[in-house]
Amino acid sequence: MNQENTTQKFDVIIIGGGPAGLSAAIYTARDRLSTLLIEKSIIGGMINEADKVDNYPGFHEGISGMDLTSKMYKQAQKYELQDVNTEVLSISANAPRDFSVKTADTEYLAKSVIIASGSDKQKLGIPGEKEFTGRGVSYCATCDAPFYREKTVAVVGGGNSAIYEALHLAKFASKVYIIHRRNQFRATTIIQERAKSEPKIKFILNTVVEAVQGTDFVENLMLKNITSNQISELSVDGVFVSIGIKPNTSYIKNLLALDDSGMIIVDSNMQTNVPGIFAAGDIRHNSIRQVIAAAGDGSIAAMSAKKWVEES
Amino acid sequence: MNQENTTQKFDVIIIGGGPAGLSAAIYTARDRLSTLLIEKSIIGGMINEADKVDNYPGFHEGISGMDLTSKMYKQAQKYELQDVNTEVLSISANAPRDFSVKTADTEYLAKSVIIASGSDKQKLGIPGEKEFTGRGVSYCATCDAPFYREKTVAVVGGGNSAIYEALHLAKFASKVYIIHRRNQFRATTIIQERAKSEPKIKFILNTVVEAVQGTDFVENLMLKNITSNQISELSVDGVFVSIGIKPNTSYIKNLLALDDSGMIIVDSNMQTNVPGIFAAGDIRHNSIRQVIAAAGDGSIAAMSAKKWVEES
Repeated sequence: MNQENTTQKFDVIIIGGGPAGLSAAIYTARDRLSTLLIEKSIIGGMINEADKVDNYPGFHEGISGMDLTSKMYKQAQKYELQDVNTEVLSISANAPRDFSVKTADTEYLAKSVIIASGSDKQKLGIPGEKEFTGRGVSYCATCDAPFYREKTVAVVGGGNSAIYEALHLAKFASKVYIIHRRNQFRATTIIQERAKSEPKIKFILNTVVEAVQGTDFVENLMLKNITSNQISELSVDGVFVSIGIKPNTSYIKNLLALDDSGMIIVDSNMQTNVPGIFAAGDIRHNSIRQVIAAAGDGSIAAMSAKKWVEES
Repeated sequence: MNQENTTQKFDVIIIGGGPAGLSAAIYTARDRLSTLLIEKSIIGGMINEADKVDNYPGFHEGISGMDLTSKMYKQAQKYELQDVNTEVLSISANAPRDFSVKTADTEYLAKSVIIASGSDKQKLGIPGEKEFTGRGVSYCATCDAPFYREKTVAVVGGGNSAIYEALHLAKFASKVYIIHRRNQFRATTIIQERAKSEPKIKFILNTVVEAVQGTDFVENLMLKNITSNQISELSVDGVFVSIGIKPNTSYIKNLLALDDSGMIIVDSNMQTNVPGIFAAGDIRHNSIRQVIAAAGDGSIAAMSAKKWVEES
């Protein structure tokens, strides 16, 4: 059987249903490009975990992550968007404007592809972490610091990001612990010095977090000193996990140029090194990992995809 | 008198109160950077003219431009934002992290500056144009084309943008006139050929629009053939003006690097060629001129300004 006759070829396939993918879908579907959105898990992505998003311009009273992405999804559905709940296993470029996107049981064809599958924050993988995510466990100080005014919080991690998160939290919280499993930091000396001279910041070294505990909200952390094996309890109102980022790029290995962190390199049009494949949101190089920036990226990638498709 | 003692030095001065500037203000003020927003006219900028914004992700039922920017402004005001209604005449860089922003009667000081003063669409300057803006007169087909399903519209202009606008409108409207004052187009041949092969598109050459007329909404255009001087009337439901863009950059001449269109050149962090001065939204090079992209830019410029200020 001739595949050409049986398989619809989309103008655009968007991989990932978070804010970047949804924004791209609103743009391409509204612009009457035939669009397929593929999401492997739940529409909305990582921001769904956020109880309250306070810095997405336009929602001055704040909005939950899930409400925001649900509105974006409804908005894309107003136009002729198709979407499917499955995992992409590979993408191949057969020819310019002829891409093949493969899942376990189907091959989808498209003239252009927008990759918006995001990146996951590394998890601690300890009891209570998942349970209290959005209720005291956070992975983003820029997002959530203002909710911890005059509270006590902990940051887990030892890199630049962890120290920056702690310094940012110190503008709001009354006390910030930095918990690190080593006795040295990977962070640059300058930024370490700034943290050391900030009286609100206290260091807890050679220590790992064994569990997050609380009732409705985080109340304390179970700590273990890895040199003495001593267990202790630390009362906190929140804990910010900053131990790394893992982009969801397994399916594009060897196809797209990535930076040292595994993020996709794009130009200012969100164009990757393969013409016709675009990337948007947290998965692209130099993303600030904010919903509004991801949504902005999505609109840019969509306009670029439109231009690409129409040039055919 | 020593100016140092009398003038507050802000962490960030944002010039322009449209979506880019407001988004930047939400981010910097929420991040506890002392922020001054300077807007010469009305908070909200050009998008205020839009009756309905359908493609700003999160507002699935659409929202008026003025409502959207009013929400953004309220959101920035929740934090300690200062704002002033005046026109910036010049910016000078006295030293790194020491910028001077001058208006007719005041000098404001800041460690960083975010330029988000947008760009204006060139206007025809004819009777009825202003009156019917948002009610049949539009400057953006990507924004407004879906409101003209099965309607008759005209595009005024002869460059690539005008032809692209016409092709986009042809996906929705039943008939699209392209009105151009010359008998030749500045648009590239390929794109002209595409327009000529689109049966919905009709060309009206050597012709200028003399007036926009209607009652509640645009109903017809008064046309003048500039070779014969003959006047005629053309019934349309909408008219899209696409005769150029004018960036509001008069006050930064000789300070920042601009592209051939006069837009500010930035890197992916929205950093201009002067460290500490950032640009966001329609005024920057390669902007797609969409609210969501401008708001995304604003958040990126704010994060970059924060990093710059904190490195001091």
